Amino acid sequence: MKHIFKHIDQNLDSRLEQLCEWLRIESVSGDPAHAEDCRTAARWLVDRLAEAGMQKAELVETGGHPAVYAEWLGAPGKPTVLLYGHYDVQPAEKSDGWSTEPFEPVIQGDLMLGRGTADDKGQVHAHLAAVESVLKVRGSLPVNVKFIVEGEEEGGSEHTEALIRDNGERLACDVVVISDSPMFGEGYPSLCVGLRGLAYGEVVVDGPAGDLHSGSFGGGVANPANVLARMLAKLHDDDGKVAIPGFYDDVVELTGEQREALAALPFDKAEFLRTTGSPEVAGERGYTTLERIWARPCCDINGLRSGYIEEGAKTIVPRRASAKVSCRLVADQSPDRVMDQLERFFKEVAPPEVKVSFIRHHTGRAYLGDTSAPAFVSARKALRLAFDADAVEIREGGSIPIVATFAEVLHAPCVLMGFGLPDQNIHGPNENLRVSNYHRGTRAIAALFVELAG
Amino acid sequence: MKHIFKHIDQNLDSRLEQLCEWLRIESVSGDPAHAEDCRTAARWLVDRLAEAGMQKAELVETGGHPAVYAEWLGAPGKPTVLLYGHYDVQPAEKSDGWSTEPFEPVIQGDLMLGRGTADDKGQVHAHLAAVESVLKVRGSLPVNVKFIVEGEEEGGSEHTEALIRDNGERLACDVVVISDSPMFGEGYPSLCVGLRGLAYGEVVVDGPAGDLHSGSFGGGVANPANVLARMLAKLHDDDGKVAIPGFYDDVVELTGEQREALAALPFDKAEFLRTTGSPEVAGERGYTTLERIWARPCCDINGLRSGYIEEGAKTIVPRRASAKVSCRLVADQSPDRVMDQLERFFKEVAPPEVKVSFIRHHTGRAYLGDTSAPAFVSARKALRLAFDADAVEIREGGSIPIVATFAEVLHAPCVLMGFGLPDQNIHGPNENLRVSNYHRGTRAIAALFVELAG
Repeated sequence: MKHIFKHIDQNLDSRLEQLCEWLRIESVSGDPAHAEDCRTAARWLVDRLAEAGMQKAELVETGGHPAVYAEWLGAPGKPTVLLYGHYDVQPAEKSDGWSTEPFEPVIQGDLMLGRGTADDKGQVHAHLAAVESVLKVRGSLPVNVKFIVEGEEEGGSEHTEALIRDNGERLACDVVVISDSPMFGEGYPSLCVGLRGLAYGEVVVDGPAGDLHSGSFGGGVANPANVLARMLAKLHDDDGKVAIPGFYDDVVELTGEQREALAALPFDKAEFLRTTGSPEVAGERGYTTLERIWARPCCDINGLRSGYIEEGAKTIVPRRASAKVSCRLVADQSPDRVMDQLERFFKEVAPPEVKVSFIRHHTGRAYLGDTSAPAFVSARKALRLAFDADAVEIREGGSIPIVATFAEVLHAPCVLMGFGLPDQNIHGPNENLRVSNYHRGTRAIAALFVELAG
Repeated sequence: MKHIFKHIDQNLDSRLEQLCEWLRIESVSGDPAHAEDCRTAARWLVDRLAEAGMQKAELVETGGHPAVYAEWLGAPGKPTVLLYGHYDVQPAEKSDGWSTEPFEPVIQGDLMLGRGTADDKGQVHAHLAAVESVLKVRGSLPVNVKFIVEGEEEGGSEHTEALIRDNGERLACDVVVISDSPMFGEGYPSLCVGLRGLAYGEVVVDGPAGDLHSGSFGGGVANPANVLARMLAKLHDDDGKVAIPGFYDDVVELTGEQREALAALPFDKAEFLRTTGSPEVAGERGYTTLERIWARPCCDINGLRSGYIEEGAKTIVPRRASAKVSCRLVADQSPDRVMDQLERFFKEVAPPEVKVSFIRHHTGRAYLGDTSAPAFVSARKALRLAFDADAVEIREGGSIPIVATFAEVLHAPCVLMGFGLPDQNIHGPNENLRVSNYHRGTRAIAALFVELAG
């Protein structure tokens, strides 16, 4: 490892330069005007992977922005690692509040600023750098390595989902490694062992055929907005628990050990309130904030609309009221089952004086890693070596649907080890990655190959 | 009366022609392009009032569209009747769904079609016709008569309110008569003896400083939309009663006699459901639909807004949720007091994890006529004479704020006797007035003068 780490250390500067070259390509997947930039960014990566010594590196057409596939399969009998990431980025304009040009990356001390530094080019580049250093120093990798780097993550990975499902054999592996989630904080190398899933629907309550004059008819017909409020109020009980029948049936409860580990993390409530701007924390009674946002399911209204919503007043009984409602799920909740429960709930709590319909928007499965699996043991050792600190187990309240797809199609554990800090500002202005964490991340991936080889 | 009625009968055709002349003037008060038309319509009325024999008839400048004032005060010792109406109309285009040109009034059998036929030129013209016939036949009126006809009713009577307050002495009277409300139905001459008031506010619930990612933060902070729904759900109890503390304190309950009278009206539930398009009637338990919309206060959400309200899905915890909430009031509820109650209610039911603010939009007092007053007795007799049917007492769920102003400033009862039918379509396409009801209305006003003189 010593020689590999030394090679990584010595090549840091030139690699940062190379990464900046990639960051300057505006691979904004959501903007059709940048379609060619996306392809250029993909080709750039194919070339670098080939230069790094991968046996195969190629563009894969998906129907949307191309993906990049690469493989080095020279370690028969050894585990196969699939490295997943994405080269596409969110849009960015300096006028959004950036202190520098978002597509002119700059390094200020330890801070690397620019769109894509953390999400996710910088972290994919750490994977590339690790592979290259190990190959340069040892002439071979201790494990088999495959890369799948997509260009549509910011738009929902639509074609990538299909790509994975259609290429189960080609992508077959023993472990998937992803660096696209934040660390708990500086000095806390982190393994993200859980992601929440999602069931996102919309309830629509229809009353009168058109908006009615609230003077002439108010009090004599069901007001869809009044009705909807009463229906939505029943989503939770007074303890902040979701009151949808059956909702908690399949929830994997936190073990005493897991709760202790979460409690041991230095959660800073004041910082949390500063970040959210909320007057106070809130949620399911009997759980800490970290438990609530990482390991407990919840139900949020994401949008509410009815009647007159402009300035001032209009005296109507609205004809319709609707709410977008989504549940964040944890293992082993089935998104489809929760969607069924949600629909049944709304239909059951609605009074007969209105018509209720339910729209299913989308779902995503929760993910909970089996942290006793050998891959997690190896990852912990690798992080310890690279960061000189014990890894902490964290979770992420959001969803990375592709992780559930990997788990389902490839039947392999997913190790989520990201190297950005909580202030990395992905999707916002001044997105950043610390140079030191890029560096340690590269070491960690290299160390992981060695550890996984046993 | 016989001679007066005969004169009214004989002059019907020429009067309809005259009315059509007035209807052709596009006195749309809300459109600055029609300001001159409004003035023309006012002058037209001044001239006709003078021709009819009023002692004084003049334009009154208001700061907005002018009002028309006229008086005939030749009956010393007799009561003074103030006839109120408005000459301004709502905008109308044939393309809105009219079967004829809205400002080219036509008479098809008994149906007079055109903007302003019912609201309110046609009914003001019936007042004018009654005065003229009585003066032509008798040479004098049996009571003193004043007209105040404004040109800003469709825009809220802003300047008229001030005009009334500033001219209490000039407008002094024993009874105000207004024909600007519908009859219960064909063959049901109606006295509208109650109007509901209004207290219209808006509650705003603020949580996070900005919209949050519902994955990263959902379940850990109070969601303003979830909170607002729970707050709004508490506005009513399970019996459909408004649950705001103190809300019913000042409500004048319906007497047994009043309930019997309302129950005796041939309310057509199927027709009501067709009109509203609601699947079913609903409201405060223990009351009929007519009681609910006419004589009971209620609380309606008029608008709801939070978070993402476009098509599709966005996974956010919204930073804010707001609801426009208005209460329809009955005598003797104080709009200001209800507004206070509403604000206190929202502040008290809100949890500490959000900030709640309350905006006061506007208020209007309810009106309940003392139907035992002599003016109502006279009005009933006059309607009986004119329509050959007993008058029914109805109420109106909406507010006519000017009525409360009259009651407050002039301390006179307001007799609301309108001659349009429920299908008169004021503000909509194909506004209409039945010729027969215009005719009977003219008779009723003339008869009222005689009855009031005693």
